[in-house]
Amino acid sequence: MDTLYFAPGTCSLAVHIALEEVGAPFQAVRVDLAHGQQRGADYLALNPKGRVPLLLTAQGPLTETPALLLYVAQRFPQAGLAPLDDAFTLARIQAFNSYLCSTVHVAHAHGKRGSRWVDADDTAAIEAMRRKVPHSYGECFELIERELLQGPWVMGEHYTIADPYLFTLAGWLESDGVDPSHLPKVLAHRQRMAERPAVQRALARVQLG
Amino acid sequence: MDTLYFAPGTCSLAVHIALEEVGAPFQAVRVDLAHGQQRGADYLALNPKGRVPLLLTAQGPLTETPALLLYVAQRFPQAGLAPLDDAFTLARIQAFNSYLCSTVHVAHAHGKRGSRWVDADDTAAIEAMRRKVPHSYGECFELIERELLQGPWVMGEHYTIADPYLFTLAGWLESDGVDPSHLPKVLAHRQRMAERPAVQRALARVQLG
Repeated sequence: MDTLYFAPGTCSLAVHIALEEVGAPFQAVRVDLAHGQQRGADYLALNPKGRVPLLLTAQGPLTETPALLLYVAQRFPQAGLAPLDDAFTLARIQAFNSYLCSTVHVAHAHGKRGSRWVDADDTAAIEAMRRKVPHSYGECFELIERELLQGPWVMGEHYTIADPYLFTLAGWLESDGVDPSHLPKVLAHRQRMAERPAVQRALARVQLG
Repeated sequence: MDTLYFAPGTCSLAVHIALEEVGAPFQAVRVDLAHGQQRGADYLALNPKGRVPLLLTAQGPLTETPALLLYVAQRFPQAGLAPLDDAFTLARIQAFNSYLCSTVHVAHAHGKRGSRWVDADDTAAIEAMRRKVPHSYGECFELIERELLQGPWVMGEHYTIADPYLFTLAGWLESDGVDPSHLPKVLAHRQRMAERPAVQRALARVQLG
């Protein structure tokens, strides 16, 4: 049985939801980020990047949210979470998830992880980054609202691995200072997601820790 | 015939190389970033993100380097650039490429694109970001050297879509202030890549503009 290493409030939720959606047998192990468990020797042996999510499979450890989402879709093809044999449509889904990880999540990370990109004691620069998050994170979601989210699901009529990932990042809008009232499609998507039993099961499991 | 929109010195080189590797018929169109062509109405109609690479296919436009690399592998399976039916190994490749786009390329981008994450007139914060690039970009490559690059190719004996992407980002080491002498595997990989005819054809085409 695969083991998902997760932490509340992180993008590991997207993988958590996908595993619930396909009905995969898995156990979930919480990583205590506040106490630095992700930098302990045991965890680094599995994931030298010291991040979540990590999926420990029978074949070995796997990391990075977009990779894990495609892996779940490919391991459980009957769930239909990605059009595996349609190169163009799959590339559109992968492009969406790649945008989330390389641009949207990165904009968010400047709020709390600024010391990745400036000296840890440069409080002025870290504060300057934090200040811009509402603008930069908001801009990403304006693009998603206007150009990328087709509705009702990200890719249109078909629910795919893009949906739990968007739901996860859309959960950070308010705490990142973005007023979502100008994002009606994103809000409707978030609501639609919250009504899915798989999403509710994943959220409940994260809550239990 | 597909059209690759590219710019010299960007990650579009990875897709350029992959297209050459598989022998795809394609034309390459240079986007003039210095004069803001990527923000012109014509280009934004194809890619509202205003970035390169963009691959314009008969079915429509596609973006994001990791998505494009998998697309090329899937469209030209006889080239064997990705183990499409091996979910675990494919996830390892996707994890590598996802790390490159979401962490390694992002570290690099803080050198010249700092205004994405702080106010454009905050020269102190932008300079603080620029100063940390040798450290943060170097750290990424130390992890690649120590943990991820199996050799001779990223995934071991098989050349895959991870290789042109690593080659592209490894080309920025010196200009990002990283001394690559402590990265012998990365350097050997870069040299090995430079000897491939497909890489040479892509570099020549970028040079011609």
